[in-house]
Amino acid sequence: MINRNRKVSRILALLAGFALLTGIGAPARAATDPELPSFPTALLYSLGNPDATPPGANDWSCTPSPSHPRPVVLVHGTWENRYDNFAKLSPALKRDGYCVFALNYGARGPGLIGQAPAVKGYGDIGESAKDLAAFVDRVRASTGSGDVDLVGHSQGGMLARQYLKFEGGAGKVHTLVSLGATHHGTTLSGIATLAETLHLLGFSPLLLGEAAQQQVVGSPFLAKLNAGGDTVPGVGYLAIATKYDEVTTPYSSAFLTAGPGATVRNVTLQDGCALDLSDHLSMTYSARAIGLVKQGLDPSAPPAPCGVNLPVL
Amino acid sequence: MINRNRKVSRILALLAGFALLTGIGAPARAATDPELPSFPTALLYSLGNPDATPPGANDWSCTPSPSHPRPVVLVHGTWENRYDNFAKLSPALKRDGYCVFALNYGARGPGLIGQAPAVKGYGDIGESAKDLAAFVDRVRASTGSGDVDLVGHSQGGMLARQYLKFEGGAGKVHTLVSLGATHHGTTLSGIATLAETLHLLGFSPLLLGEAAQQQVVGSPFLAKLNAGGDTVPGVGYLAIATKYDEVTTPYSSAFLTAGPGATVRNVTLQDGCALDLSDHLSMTYSARAIGLVKQGLDPSAPPAPCGVNLPVL
Repeated sequence: MINRNRKVSRILALLAGFALLTGIGAPARAATDPELPSFPTALLYSLGNPDATPPGANDWSCTPSPSHPRPVVLVHGTWENRYDNFAKLSPALKRDGYCVFALNYGARGPGLIGQAPAVKGYGDIGESAKDLAAFVDRVRASTGSGDVDLVGHSQGGMLARQYLKFEGGAGKVHTLVSLGATHHGTTLSGIATLAETLHLLGFSPLLLGEAAQQQVVGSPFLAKLNAGGDTVPGVGYLAIATKYDEVTTPYSSAFLTAGPGATVRNVTLQDGCALDLSDHLSMTYSARAIGLVKQGLDPSAPPAPCGVNLPVL
Repeated sequence: MINRNRKVSRILALLAGFALLTGIGAPARAATDPELPSFPTALLYSLGNPDATPPGANDWSCTPSPSHPRPVVLVHGTWENRYDNFAKLSPALKRDGYCVFALNYGARGPGLIGQAPAVKGYGDIGESAKDLAAFVDRVRASTGSGDVDLVGHSQGGMLARQYLKFEGGAGKVHTLVSLGATHHGTTLSGIATLAETLHLLGFSPLLLGEAAQQQVVGSPFLAKLNAGGDTVPGVGYLAIATKYDEVTTPYSSAFLTAGPGATVRNVTLQDGCALDLSDHLSMTYSARAIGLVKQGLDPSAPPAPCGVNLPVL
């Protein structure tokens, strides 16, 4: 169990976020944004702090250690932000001695959902891949590392492949770990169903932004990304999926097939861990998923633990 | 597992709440507010729907059945509302055949935190007890039942005792089930610490509202409520606590001592269920707590199940 002071700090930070969200004036922003244990609590905090940074990330003076020579760049998913996606994973990696970086992207262009400043990742994925390229170059310059590792959730994992294939990422990336990534789009109950049903309710498709439509199975964007194979030579891929994913559907859409010069490992969270009930939004808060990410970044990491993780919905 | 359609409905309802919260216009309110599995998701929904009703509650045409002759009135806690507190408990009781009712209270008077319309339960507890009295009388008139059962969380459980003692509740209430109630106030790490620390951060005590100060251990309000004993004659009490409560501290503050003509049963969630890690805010979403509430309302109810429930923070 976490200790009481840490709990009180978390509660205060959440209240501060809540106070800002609701317009209650006070110099309430915590000096450091808090580590939080679940997606909903982190989303609540980020509503009041839309540019929050997950703890442990974006220390631009961080120098990689010999045991962890590559900086890790975290790439959030659709309608998420770097904080609500990684408020648990980022500090976990930092405590293991990694230099951790996390960007926000996809927060411009059509998409009424972007009126909520905490909602990012809705803009054109091609543009977002360019933003990721610039961010990785900044991380490489700051740390002096020739290559980085990428960890992406949902759109973030697929966006990383767009970067590898079309924006110069090959040669700058050692490993890509993806979680519930929309590598091959979503079908019935994912974004496609949400978009259709929201449209029935009177929402404009514009509400969802370009990225949502680009991730529907069979979109021209995905056809171009996946033409010629899933991988680029010289990169190692770990693709993590949860069988309770209700957004990336079927969940095997998050898996990859290795092409020439690449390695792929596909893992389902529930293999060997029936207790892990993660859905799409809670999976980056799963102890097992975090353990698997660590293994993907460093094969000598200990086996991933198995614990209970509940779905968000 | 819940089925896919129900999951999609929940996601849509949450998105609708989120859309309203963020000012995105659309006729998006669900016909019925959704059942949700956790406090943070229900809080998110209620931010956009501050007057939401937990599903199953406030059917004013409900007639109690012979097997469940007394209507159940749910009383939320400090800074909560009827929806975020009971979005799981209310439909669970309704499915068992109860007539369920839930009020909002304490949403007027000083307390800047009340600028967030979803935040209730911050006003003077004496006034809130009068509101509860009026609500119970409305339920009695509507259902034709002479007496009701009360289920209160946090302030809600203690407020019920104020009603029993000073606002005519004795004679109209058969059973009071309380969860993590501030019957004897909070000490170090509860509201008192939050209030002190927020004050250090520049918040005005006014922010918290009258109810928070009234629940600090040793307050004049609590001294008057508890003078002469915890109970009133003729009422059965079930007081449920969780040992991981970080707001009602020590958690035994939520227990009661029986006086003349009353029965008291004090139960800790973890007795016989180490898996239940509920904290103050998640306890009304615990399957064990819900099972215990059902036993409190009907001694012939089946034994409370034991399952995992995680803390909010």
